Parts: sequence; C-alpha cells; structure tokens
Amino acid sequence: MQTLNENTVVEAVVAQMASTPNPRFKEIMNAAVRHLHAFAREVNLTPEEWLEGIRFFTEVGQKCTPYRQEFILLSDTLGFSALVGLMSDARTPGVHTDASLLGPFYRMNSPDYKLGESIAKRTQGTEIVMYGRVSDSNGKGIPGASVQVWQTDEKGDYDLQRPNAATEMDLRGTLHADAEGLYYFRTVIPAGYSIPMDGPVGEMIRAQNRHGFRPSHIHFLIGAPGHREVVTALYIYNDPHIDSDTVFGVTDSLVVKVNQSDPSSPLPHLPSIKYDFQLAVSGRGDGSGRVGADPSQITRKPAESAPSLT
Amino acid sequence: MQTLNENTVVEAVVAQMASTPNPRFKEIMNAAVRHLHAFAREVNLTPEEWLEGIRFFTEVGQKCTPYRQEFILLSDTLGFSALVGLMSDARTPGVHTDASLLGPFYRMNSPDYKLGESIAKRTQGTEIVMYGRVSDSNGKGIPGASVQVWQTDEKGDYDLQRPNAATEMDLRGTLHADAEGLYYFRTVIPAGYSIPMDGPVGEMIRAQNRHGFRPSHIHFLIGAPGHREVVTALYIYNDPHIDSDTVFGVTDSLVVKVNQSDPSSPLPHLPSIKYDFQLAVSGRGDGSGRVGADPSQITRKPAESAPSLT
Repeated sequence: MQTLNENTVVEAVVAQMASTPNPRFKEIMNAAVRHLHAFAREVNLTPEEWLEGIRFFTEVGQKCTPYRQEFILLSDTLGFSALVGLMSDARTPGVHTDASLLGPFYRMNSPDYKLGESIAKRTQGTEIVMYGRVSDSNGKGIPGASVQVWQTDEKGDYDLQRPNAATEMDLRGTLHADAEGLYYFRTVIPAGYSIPMDGPVGEMIRAQNRHGFRPSHIHFLIGAPGHREVVTALYIYNDPHIDSDTVFGVTDSLVVKVNQSDPSSPLPHLPSIKYDFQLAVSGRGDGSGRVGADPSQITRKPAESAPSLT
Repeated sequence: MQTLNENTVVEAVVAQMASTPNPRFKEIMNAAVRHLHAFAREVNLTPEEWLEGIRFFTEVGQKCTPYRQEFILLSDTLGFSALVGLMSDARTPGVHTDASLLGPFYRMNSPDYKLGESIAKRTQGTEIVMYGRVSDSNGKGIPGASVQVWQTDEKGDYDLQRPNAATEMDLRGTLHADAEGLYYFRTVIPAGYSIPMDGPVGEMIRAQNRHGFRPSHIHFLIGAPGHREVVTALYIYNDPHIDSDTVFGVTDSLVVKVNQSDPSSPLPHLPSIKYDFQLAVSGRGDGSGRVGADPSQITRKPAESAPSLT
C-alpha cells in the first residue's frame, strides 16, 4: 500500500503501465502521462477546470463525423499537426521541399489535365499560370512526376463546399511533368478562408480572440516512383493572414509571389507563380508523412510500423 | 514571416494565443500546448502514431452517452482524476479526511435510513456494521452530519448495474450522525469489479496488460453546514487489487479492516469496520472538490470561479 499525493501518483501510474508489452506504446504512454500530470501540477488544475476540459474533449469527439474531423482540427489549431509534420520532414534525409498540412479537402482521383490546361472550370477569379520543375535532391528533373493540385476559388471555397460537391470536381487536378520535370497549368488566385467555427474548436478559437483564418494557398501532393511523396502547400505572400495562419502551415520556404511579368514563364501573357519542388529518394518503411485535417485518414489503416492499441 | 521547425512552432502557437482575454484560460492553454509539444518532441511522434491517437480520442468521445463518460474513465485510468482530487485536497486548509474518486455510480436522493438500519435489501453477502464519528478538524463531533453511502454487492455490482436499476435503489442510503457525531449502519462486504472494458479505454487497458479491476470499497459523501464536503471511499485491506487499483483511488489512510470482534462497536454481535471522518471548515468560493467518473457531472454547470470557454 502507498500514500498517494500529487507528486507520487504519476509514479503509481507509470508503475502500473510497466506491464505494456509493446515497447514503443509503453514509451509513448509514459511520456504522455508524465506530461499530462506535469501540466496539471504546473497550473494547479481545479476540479471545476478538469470538468470543463472533460466537457470540451467530449464535445470534440461527438462533433466528428465521416465528413468532419474535429480532433484533427483541434490538433491543427494547437500547432500539433504542424509539429508532427515538421518532425517527420526533419527525419527525411536528402534535400526536399518542406511539407505542409494536407488539410481536409484532398480528394483522390482528381481529373487529369495536360500541361498548360486550366484546372478552374467555374470560377471568376484572376487567371494565372503556376509552373516550375520537379527535381530530385540533386536538382535533376524527374520526368513524368505526378503533380496533384487543389485549392479554393476566389471566394475561399473548395469544390467540396459548393452545393454540387458530389458530382463535380473543380479547382483540382492531376498533371504529369514533362521529360525535363517541368510542370505548368492555369488556375485562378485562391482566397483564404476560415476554419469551421461552429464546433468546440471554433468556441476555443473565439475564446482566444484568434481570427480563425488560413491565408490563401494552393495544395500540392507530388510523387514519383523511387521518391518520397511530398505533401505541401504554397502560400500567397500578400494575404493579410500570412503571418497568423490558424493552423501554422506557413513557413518562409513555401511563400510565393504572383509575378505580373515573367518572360521565362511557359505562358508569358499571364501573371505567374513559379515554384520548383524537390523530392528525396524513398527509403524502406517510409510512412506517407501526411498530417492534416483529412477525415478520410481516420478510416485508413495506419502503416504497419505504427504501434497499435489492438 | 517565419521559418517554423519542431522547436519554434510551439512559440508561434503561444504567440497566437496571447490575445486570450481570460488570464486563467490563457495560462492553462499555454501550459497545455507546451507540454503537448514537449511530449511529441520527446518521443519523436510519427504521423502514423499521431493518426492512431486521433482515432483513439475520437472513439473515446463517441463512446460517451448521458449514461457513460468514457473521457472521465480515461482520466481515471491515467491517474489524472486522482491527481486533480489530491491537489484539491492539498489546497484545503485544516485537518480533514483524504478524498477519493466519486466514481460513476453516485445517485442523488438515496433513501434515508435510521442509525443501525441495513442499507442492503437484496443481497446475500456477509453482514457487517460500519461505524465511526464525523468530527471537525479539532476532533469535535458534528451533530447530525449527513453521511451518504453507496457500494457494490457481494458480486461487485451496484444497483445501477442490475436489471431493475430504474425502480429500486439498493446498497446506498443517507444517514444522519447522532448528537455526538456518531454514525452506524449495517451492510454487506462489497466485492471489487472491473471498469467497463468494451470501449477504447478497455482497449488501452488490455494493450497495457493491466487487469482493469478496482478493489472492494465503500463510497462516502459526507457533509455538514459550515464544513467542506468530503467525497471519499474506504478500501478493504485484503482485496487482491488493493495495491493496483486501475483508477488510483487507494491511499493508505483510506484502507480499512473488517474486525471479527469489536466490543466497542454499537452492534458488537456483527463483524465491523470502524472509520472516523473529519471535515474542514468551509471557506469562501469552495468548489465541491468532486472528481470522478460521474456522467451526470457533465451536464452540471461548473462553478462560477472556473474559466469557461464560452
């Protein structure tokens, strides 16, 4: 028997979890419990505050549906998804483009486009050309690299947020780089948008006087055989929220400008954004590295290397 | 603009939360985010593990109903509820009985019993008498102190877990101490039991090779005007799980023996458990201090002193 107090109870928990057979699960739970207890001791959490936290987490869980993942949104707004992505990125050897959040609006099997075609079907925005090269860590172009792109329209809506979401894809597509690794397509300048503010995460964001906006950006998922997939996004430099992204996806290397005149553009009559992507060579047992508010991830089987509770 | 990496992203989050108007909410969130990020960096959490965590928390939230609070169960099994209760206890000035978890089986308005009556109506267990004094911090008996008691039967079931739960209360009751602060009632020796193992928390407990049992115990909620309410439980010393309570409620000062012969008992023909309770004087703005797996707490309004997200 033992005398428990606020400093010893954590050791009792760790001792009871010592029987965990999976060493990685044990390591993760030990660290989680130590930090959880240290947090509560640090702020001297009261029973009333504990109860408010239980209420909050319960509401976050209950807000989740197959089409909305409020726990991922919470992770995003606390910078936790960004952190996990950055750590995954840092473990990838070789020069490669920085990752950014996948976000909740990725769709598989987006329409194929030829180089130079427009991915914008039903939008009134300012037309631009987006172009650059996909190369390996040594700067050698990767012929035929797959470039998946998706973005909002000039009002800040993805196609999934429009009434006809189920039947028509817009402002998204899959292209293939040419023999030199060059890609280019036409689109419109996207607008920034607010995260969903009608759930408990929105409640938290309002209580923190945060604006809840993501700056204007274009998503990319770039892959090629033998290379590690890059999930990233490019952020338009003059967006008013470029320095205060609610989900912490923006980093310097991913900020781009719209050039009004660019003689080296493949479509020089249009304003342009130029960005070159670099992919690292893939290693054994790579995870996808995808982190972001994608509800469909929840039903995907995690990689075999991940510890499982079951 | 900024370059985010695994060490700087937490500062970006804290900076964005700096606009929080409620200073206590700001303090709690800052500490929560710092520990959350430190946890992930410490274990180098992978995207696959992050995804497994999102799945787990989502399932915990979705398992909650008005009659089952899986997030409180998670808090209990990680020793977090015990920690919050112990800290609240430590803040209470004056000598008082140690607190223990309220648990999910408390019911308001349990039947009144006279001193010496049995709270066991439909059970085959070994009859005992439970008795002692309720006194203040100076050891002075508190006349008429209210003693609410509830416990399992000899099979480890509360009345709420029986088929006729809605219509009949059993093994629970409310007594009032006499003019000297003495209380006594008859009951049976309760049996220990397993926490609910059919949800995600049960999944975690199994993955940790933990047994999931609580040792045999009797719950008490003791109050008197002008005194701070005590929520606690007494644990029977010879239970096989006395040193490994799954929810960390057991502490030395709350462990009791069944005495086969006790001449000072008010009912000396029965085996007895003797325990004296002490209540501290209540202060201004006291919270109830109740922490435990009580689903009904979720719908109670938190005390006004608690920071609220709304």
